[in-house]
Amino acid sequence: MGEMLGQLRRTHMAGLVDEKFIGQEVIVTGWVAKRRNLGSLIFCDVRDTEGILQVVFREEDSREAYEKADRLRNEFCILVRGTVAKRESVNDSIPTGQVELIAKELKILSESETPPIYIKENLDAAENVRLKYRYLDLRRPDMQRIFKIRSKAYISIRNFMDGEGFLEVETPILNKSTPEGARDYLVPSRNYPGSFYALPQSPQIFKQLLMVSGFDKYFQIAKCFRDEDLRANRQPEFTQIDIEMSFIGVEDIIDLNERLVQRVFKEVLDKDIALPFERLTYKEAMERFGSDKPDLRFGMELKNLTDLVENSDFAVFKNAIEQKGSVRAITLSGGASMGRKDIDRLGEFVKTYRAKGLAYIQLKEEGIKSPLSKFLSEEEFNAIIERSEARTGDVIFIVADKNEVVFQSLGALRLELAKKYNLLEGTEEFKFAWVTEFPLLERDEEAGRFVALHHPFTSPMEEDLHLLDTDPGAARAKAYDMVLNGEELGGGSIRIHDSKLQEKMFTLLGFSKEEAWERFGFLLEAFKYGPPPHGGLAFGMDRLVMFLAGTDNIKDVIAFPKNQNAYDPMSEAPNTVDPIQLKELGIDVVKKTEE
Amino acid sequence: MGEMLGQLRRTHMAGLVDEKFIGQEVIVTGWVAKRRNLGSLIFCDVRDTEGILQVVFREEDSREAYEKADRLRNEFCILVRGTVAKRESVNDSIPTGQVELIAKELKILSESETPPIYIKENLDAAENVRLKYRYLDLRRPDMQRIFKIRSKAYISIRNFMDGEGFLEVETPILNKSTPEGARDYLVPSRNYPGSFYALPQSPQIFKQLLMVSGFDKYFQIAKCFRDEDLRANRQPEFTQIDIEMSFIGVEDIIDLNERLVQRVFKEVLDKDIALPFERLTYKEAMERFGSDKPDLRFGMELKNLTDLVENSDFAVFKNAIEQKGSVRAITLSGGASMGRKDIDRLGEFVKTYRAKGLAYIQLKEEGIKSPLSKFLSEEEFNAIIERSEARTGDVIFIVADKNEVVFQSLGALRLELAKKYNLLEGTEEFKFAWVTEFPLLERDEEAGRFVALHHPFTSPMEEDLHLLDTDPGAARAKAYDMVLNGEELGGGSIRIHDSKLQEKMFTLLGFSKEEAWERFGFLLEAFKYGPPPHGGLAFGMDRLVMFLAGTDNIKDVIAFPKNQNAYDPMSEAPNTVDPIQLKELGIDVVKKTEE
Repeated sequence: MGEMLGQLRRTHMAGLVDEKFIGQEVIVTGWVAKRRNLGSLIFCDVRDTEGILQVVFREEDSREAYEKADRLRNEFCILVRGTVAKRESVNDSIPTGQVELIAKELKILSESETPPIYIKENLDAAENVRLKYRYLDLRRPDMQRIFKIRSKAYISIRNFMDGEGFLEVETPILNKSTPEGARDYLVPSRNYPGSFYALPQSPQIFKQLLMVSGFDKYFQIAKCFRDEDLRANRQPEFTQIDIEMSFIGVEDIIDLNERLVQRVFKEVLDKDIALPFERLTYKEAMERFGSDKPDLRFGMELKNLTDLVENSDFAVFKNAIEQKGSVRAITLSGGASMGRKDIDRLGEFVKTYRAKGLAYIQLKEEGIKSPLSKFLSEEEFNAIIERSEARTGDVIFIVADKNEVVFQSLGALRLELAKKYNLLEGTEEFKFAWVTEFPLLERDEEAGRFVALHHPFTSPMEEDLHLLDTDPGAARAKAYDMVLNGEELGGGSIRIHDSKLQEKMFTLLGFSKEEAWERFGFLLEAFKYGPPPHGGLAFGMDRLVMFLAGTDNIKDVIAFPKNQNAYDPMSEAPNTVDPIQLKELGIDVVKKTEE
Repeated sequence: MGEMLGQLRRTHMAGLVDEKFIGQEVIVTGWVAKRRNLGSLIFCDVRDTEGILQVVFREEDSREAYEKADRLRNEFCILVRGTVAKRESVNDSIPTGQVELIAKELKILSESETPPIYIKENLDAAENVRLKYRYLDLRRPDMQRIFKIRSKAYISIRNFMDGEGFLEVETPILNKSTPEGARDYLVPSRNYPGSFYALPQSPQIFKQLLMVSGFDKYFQIAKCFRDEDLRANRQPEFTQIDIEMSFIGVEDIIDLNERLVQRVFKEVLDKDIALPFERLTYKEAMERFGSDKPDLRFGMELKNLTDLVENSDFAVFKNAIEQKGSVRAITLSGGASMGRKDIDRLGEFVKTYRAKGLAYIQLKEEGIKSPLSKFLSEEEFNAIIERSEARTGDVIFIVADKNEVVFQSLGALRLELAKKYNLLEGTEEFKFAWVTEFPLLERDEEAGRFVALHHPFTSPMEEDLHLLDTDPGAARAKAYDMVLNGEELGGGSIRIHDSKLQEKMFTLLGFSKEEAWERFGFLLEAFKYGPPPHGGLAFGMDRLVMFLAGTDNIKDVIAFPKNQNAYDPMSEAPNTVDPIQLKELGIDVVKKTEE
């Protein structure tokens, strides 16, 4: 049976005991990380959340402690009282490496079976085992570090927002399910059998209602839910930093959020982030980087060759241009030496982005090597090389297609090449940018109608209001994304606060008045009563912490994550429930889980 | 159509414009709270979250603004640019009452229909109307004030916990449903049709797992859910301040939480709360106040008369004492003048607490008036009066029954009399106390077995460990509640971290090993690997805010609450969903909501 603490209390964290404490008596607690019995001496590493301290048990110091120490095994939970002493063989790799603790008293607070995973950094165990024994996985120093970072990030964000006059307000988790809520998690109601709540995909409507309520500045670090197939780095429940303000415009939100991010990186990592962030319009981001979340840590920008080859007879170029597409290129420095196989592989790569092919021009010492040789004139080659800023030794990759395909495939190719040829080495660690002036609408080709790129409440830019009648697809929105190293960190918009404009939007989106009201009725109702101009932004908290912690796995930053089937191997959730419970809820299981 | 903000931005909050600004140009925004058209002058009160400012529109200052102002109606959302001037008829009841804003420019940002509820303090509208138009209800100054208090409380709590070295960790919302989870909200799984997640009633098991993970100090302001009939002041989702620490004892938790509460009351209300709080054992609280959450703002303590009447022939007393019950009393000062009807009403009152009757002794000027006169001797009367500390003019109320009934009925009567006779007037505003040494187990008479009073992981007191074998019902727990003005604000315990002791507890609770593992398997599994001694506490955040805001309605402190049927009249949640969604989840509705 484990010993009780009694009146004894830890005086210091084991991982923080250093030379300053030599000669002092301290009490530390923690877990046995390593034990060596050298006969007259027993060495034991004690691990707590701050680090590791070497403890020495000698028979002459305390026979009782020494004898108990002989029973210690890895992961036993212990308390040690002893005197800090200078260590003979120092270990410079840890803060406590200059000292050891000469034990006078040992309490074995609890014992441990042999743990199924090693408690060490950079563990390479199967994910399902790590998740099943998550409480042991979390004991690992790298996981402890991540959750300290996450906690620091919370408090840093909250103090910044509080200082800026924002109120933290909790919005409900038991929400209304919307007719298009295919991704909603549902919760059967007991009071209204056959009716359901839905867990929120975001607090979007509630934060807008808070603006209608006159709250002026709202934020929340909110749990959101999405019941969808979990691709890498998605979790069924995730956390969002949710912000909304009234009586403001795009610049106000950009300014606030730049300062927020700057503060968090300073307070959590002691990194200085320069303001303002670089800004690109959506159009510019696509044309220069083939992406609405461009990685600006390196160049290799896209170049538009369309005007240079518009008279070419090459059918691929011709077709693309005739279909209002374009011919664009990126240049890989030093790529002239690439072999045929490597180039073919890149050709396959761009095909996954629907490009029909990848043309190239290798600028070898001995001259140009290109499958385009028979189609292009020397003048055309020269113009392309000049536009592409290519030099001898480089390779130019060219895609001709619909713009959408050109951007996607070259944008992806650019990132692929950067990874493959280590172009990120030595670049800036955190490269932030804003992408602004997103299109308001996106054509859903299958449904043959427009859908909102952000959401149906996003305001068009004033200067584009007239386009809603003439060319809605060309209208730009007051929408903005914050991008970090090529990933979207947050996004938002100024909302429509005018009910006539909102009705027009719904019409453009193909909603009848009835549909719009069924879907968003209570927001539309609220908008009858003097809604203020407002807008906001939402950050992915989990993604932010991934950047702060330097991990690319979302499961590393969530204490108790689910696996890719939204299953928790530790608690075994979800599971079957008592039929009586279902009866009360007025529902029945028609398809049983295969067990 | 509403006007756009354009480049104009608010320079000051309307409710904060005072004499300091006289002569200055300011821009304010907000809602029209009142409008009077005096012909050549239009007066308009603008309300924002900080308060109200009077604006004057005069034709000679701006004809355009004046003409627009004529269109203003209540709750229009506007922006006004103007010059602050000294006001003729001052209003001392508001901070801006010395000044008015002479308008030069007016923008009508959006219009409003006539609002269905008045936007004013102390609104007396039907609750369902207030909930349906919650966004308007929240515009009321008293609601704005409450959510500022709530937001201040969050940041105060978080900074305190951060300063004490606690990590904020989020635990999952999609949990495992437990076999006894009658109060669980369920969430059908799409990946495992027929299986369900459950929303957490508290993060209890996860916070204990975090201790096993070595996190040492954890806190979270966590959403919790309970699907039960909503009595007054219950909501289906509520917020809990959740705290857990390792390597500590009861004193450490009490100390931490006293300082936490002291900090919050100071920072939010500027109230000084004296430490340490008064402490009572459970036994003392029951014997003195008939309650485990005693209201210590006033005396009127229970007195045990059992020994004084043990030889009495009065059957009611005799029976009670024979059944190991007791005879106890409380004294109401000045109650000798109560009429028969009032006393009868109190007799009915205690019957709702299962007391069979209420005896009384009125100490009138002219002598004793009591239905006990024929049963008790003068000596017995004198002894009772002395023990009850009653004087001429008082009344003594007596209940004889099983202890449980005596405590409950007299405890409730004590509160009832305090309310009825205004005994709380002039008492301390916030009277905190700790109740400690709760019983470990409670007899469930229906089931004929013990149940855990707190929960099955609560540690017995060391000195009572031997009682687990001989007299489990008498064993006390390391459990404690924080009580404020007679309400439980928080509660917690030191947990069992020894698997053998835990097994013994499960046996006492009548769980077979299989049942225990089915219920708590992953926690028991975790406890195999060196669990630390640990304990914690959970506060009701909503209740804390109710105290801070001075409201006794939980709906006042939740931005978007549900009504007593767990229904939201605003969003109309819960509602019916698309059968396709249910099919995907493998469930079927067998009982439809009556519509």
